[in-house]
Amino acid sequence: MLSAYEQFQTHIGELHDLLCAISVLKWDARTMMPRGGAQSRGQQLATLTRHAQEHFLSPHFERILHAVEAEVSDENPDSYRVRSVHQTRQAYDLLRRIPLELVTDKAAIEPVAEQVWAEAKAANDFNHFAPFLERQVELARAQAEAIGYDEHPYDALIQEFDPGMTAREVRRIFDKLKTGLLPLLQQITARGNEPEPTLWQQSYPLDAQKAFALDVAQDFGYDLDRGRLDVTAHPFAISFTREDVRITNRYDEHFWPKAFFSTLHETGHALYEQYIDPALTRTALTIDFLGKYPMGGTSSAVHESQSRLWENLIGRSHTFWQVYFPRLQSYFPQQFASTTADQLYRAVNRVQPSLIRVEADEITYNLHIMLRVELELGLLDGSIRVADLPEVWRVKMQEYLGIVPPTDTLGCLQDVHWASGAFGSFASYTLGNILSAQFFLAALQSQPEIEAGLRRGEYHLLLEWLTEHIYEHGRAYPMQELLPRATGHGLTVEPYLAYLHAKFGGLYGL
Amino acid sequence: MLSAYEQFQTHIGELHDLLCAISVLKWDARTMMPRGGAQSRGQQLATLTRHAQEHFLSPHFERILHAVEAEVSDENPDSYRVRSVHQTRQAYDLLRRIPLELVTDKAAIEPVAEQVWAEAKAANDFNHFAPFLERQVELARAQAEAIGYDEHPYDALIQEFDPGMTAREVRRIFDKLKTGLLPLLQQITARGNEPEPTLWQQSYPLDAQKAFALDVAQDFGYDLDRGRLDVTAHPFAISFTREDVRITNRYDEHFWPKAFFSTLHETGHALYEQYIDPALTRTALTIDFLGKYPMGGTSSAVHESQSRLWENLIGRSHTFWQVYFPRLQSYFPQQFASTTADQLYRAVNRVQPSLIRVEADEITYNLHIMLRVELELGLLDGSIRVADLPEVWRVKMQEYLGIVPPTDTLGCLQDVHWASGAFGSFASYTLGNILSAQFFLAALQSQPEIEAGLRRGEYHLLLEWLTEHIYEHGRAYPMQELLPRATGHGLTVEPYLAYLHAKFGGLYGL
Repeated sequence: MLSAYEQFQTHIGELHDLLCAISVLKWDARTMMPRGGAQSRGQQLATLTRHAQEHFLSPHFERILHAVEAEVSDENPDSYRVRSVHQTRQAYDLLRRIPLELVTDKAAIEPVAEQVWAEAKAANDFNHFAPFLERQVELARAQAEAIGYDEHPYDALIQEFDPGMTAREVRRIFDKLKTGLLPLLQQITARGNEPEPTLWQQSYPLDAQKAFALDVAQDFGYDLDRGRLDVTAHPFAISFTREDVRITNRYDEHFWPKAFFSTLHETGHALYEQYIDPALTRTALTIDFLGKYPMGGTSSAVHESQSRLWENLIGRSHTFWQVYFPRLQSYFPQQFASTTADQLYRAVNRVQPSLIRVEADEITYNLHIMLRVELELGLLDGSIRVADLPEVWRVKMQEYLGIVPPTDTLGCLQDVHWASGAFGSFASYTLGNILSAQFFLAALQSQPEIEAGLRRGEYHLLLEWLTEHIYEHGRAYPMQELLPRATGHGLTVEPYLAYLHAKFGGLYGL
Repeated sequence: MLSAYEQFQTHIGELHDLLCAISVLKWDARTMMPRGGAQSRGQQLATLTRHAQEHFLSPHFERILHAVEAEVSDENPDSYRVRSVHQTRQAYDLLRRIPLELVTDKAAIEPVAEQVWAEAKAANDFNHFAPFLERQVELARAQAEAIGYDEHPYDALIQEFDPGMTAREVRRIFDKLKTGLLPLLQQITARGNEPEPTLWQQSYPLDAQKAFALDVAQDFGYDLDRGRLDVTAHPFAISFTREDVRITNRYDEHFWPKAFFSTLHETGHALYEQYIDPALTRTALTIDFLGKYPMGGTSSAVHESQSRLWENLIGRSHTFWQVYFPRLQSYFPQQFASTTADQLYRAVNRVQPSLIRVEADEITYNLHIMLRVELELGLLDGSIRVADLPEVWRVKMQEYLGIVPPTDTLGCLQDVHWASGAFGSFASYTLGNILSAQFFLAALQSQPEIEAGLRRGEYHLLLEWLTEHIYEHGRAYPMQELLPRATGHGLTVEPYLAYLHAKFGGLYGL
């Protein structure tokens, strides 16, 4: 006779398999699927999603859940066992509120809307995408109503990415950050940039771009026996258990940093997943029960803290280029023949308002996020209509960054998130930036040898610290608990602002 | 209130989605998955397979099945509606006999055994693969016992590929074929070959190989908006509805015909799938309920008749090269600078006993199949032990083809089928050869303009005939019914033997 906990694990393991299968189908839809396949894929995703839901919310599992709650009631509430049960209960109670019809409708539209978005982006044709965005907004609002919220529909949706966050809290944090960020940006703008480097007028063969990026990714710890890199319009990372964690990218023949830093970014996500404790595979502590963030890590913002840490705090650091510039030169000997490591460091850290979020510098990046969150809030509460989005986007870009996109491709069509129905996900990027500095500071303070390692291009001590304090725990601790355990503090913008002031103060001689 | 038939269609549609999802996961496992992912993928496949089984065999569906049988009982038994219900009932009664445990065990081992096979093949290490083959034989025998059979366990397993076939019937057909084939082969051998062409000592860039092959595939009718071509160790075709039908291939830098003809072969499979009546999508008439042959076409042998028809009766014909040789030259101008269309035609139709089935000429190919079927029968009835397979293979190769493979990589490790657990599938290849000649003859006889089209490199009339008589019907008619409807005859080896005698008689001046 199996214990209740064993039955619980078996049932959750199967749910895990179903959710991973859904992720494989989504990965395939974005990377490999011929365009004719989108409709069929939508039906397949809808059916799988419905089966996963029914599996989770079945009366059979409800009985198991009751039994296992009784079985673990005297155990240490901090243990993985108890946390598994507790988090499953939370998800169970939340998911029961969402009508099955809504879940399958959302699943079915996703690959179709993503494909229409890609076509619209390629053709700079917002009207082609608009009806699908309308539908996604409608479904997102229905989802918010089903989940329930106190103040703003956004509060319900952000739970799918960053549990415990609200629109009010995001605004509070963003205001604090803006207060520290804008004076710095003004100082930099007043100082002015050196002339645009001519480096990016050269050609960088794509094979060498990919090889160098994977070279660095593997130095960081990305295991290609359990991963792979493909091409997509919008880069992403996805996990089908820690044994199969894939990343994607896209290349620009001239602007080599585009693909390079985005590979490091996705590598950060991948490292988090690949270094989760194997014992958590197929358990409730690596499941995204809500299906919007199919990763084993604890939340979207914490995940983003790791992508930004490896991309920026490591990959765009002076220390990194002191070590890696000769290697870069070996991949592109002609292109960098008359460049120094310092020049490259400056070239990849140029602060300048620009149109594309994923290519923005570390400072203006956050303004892109603030803009998107503001528009998301408006779309969700009805104060912004889909039809007006291109114009509102232009107005806000002028307001936030002082520039206006000449096309919607370079404007409101640049990101896949809303096509995927991922409303509530953008805030994580800036929250992740803030967290990245907190985690990195804590790592360096608690173990000074990490910094010595970085100066030699050795990352295992840093990876070990991150694994011990973040990665290996999967979803066992929510951000609100993980962060103080790892750093001794709750969320605060100070370390991030200090990092930006030190780095860009140095670069711009402030 | 939905009619019983509507409920039936909904339930079958969902089953279809689940089975397509399984196919996507298998395609990914063979083409894209990093090696570390095999174990997780096995669990995912096992869970999905179990869910598909439970979905199909649920008491809920049993009630629907009863109700729909009553609802259609007065309708035309030849209609798609009635056939859907009838075939679903047959599959239902068969699948109920197979324990769920066995189904999931088979699903779980497949990606793992395939991966070990690929490693063993690369390393020429049969012992690495042997335990997995043992296990697959064991599971196949258990499957045969569960399904039931009169004479030989093979009779149960071949139902998964070619319903209605038996070991006895396969042997009878193969004996007839052999009687006609061996004298022809002896005459050819006595005549002897011209010296080995030096063509295949040159280098053929892989990009151009792929481009030319896809060029021809598209001329045949393969729609890349609903398909794609990837690289795998063992080429295959797979369908996730007619809107997404993928093929794979592998390349040899020197032996250009290897990839080319194998692309045409898989294109033949893909055409069958892409030209199924769209109304049959997600119905019982495009489902492989048993999950071994995940295609919408009616049986493995009929499918194979189409891959062999496009590969051989078209692609290796004199007519084809009269039209396509200049195009081939445009892709490889230097390599074929001093070759004529006739010389190429001879070079790609050279009869010579060789080690690798998929590279064999049209005549000896069938001997490779007969050998495999004989070994399959032995493995299944226990008269051949897995440990003895390499030696038995060598002995049989000597007996059938007069040559002995120097390594197991070139011997018993060359095919993926047994690693995938596909016992009973090999006979389809030779049955397909036989059928290909029957179908092709019927097409040419019923519509003489088809032949005129072929001489101009136009395939739409042939494709239309095949669509009307074979493709569009999906699985509506079993081979035993489809064949007489299309050709006026049951299965007979005469047209195939006549085709081989005419073609190779001409080539070898017999």
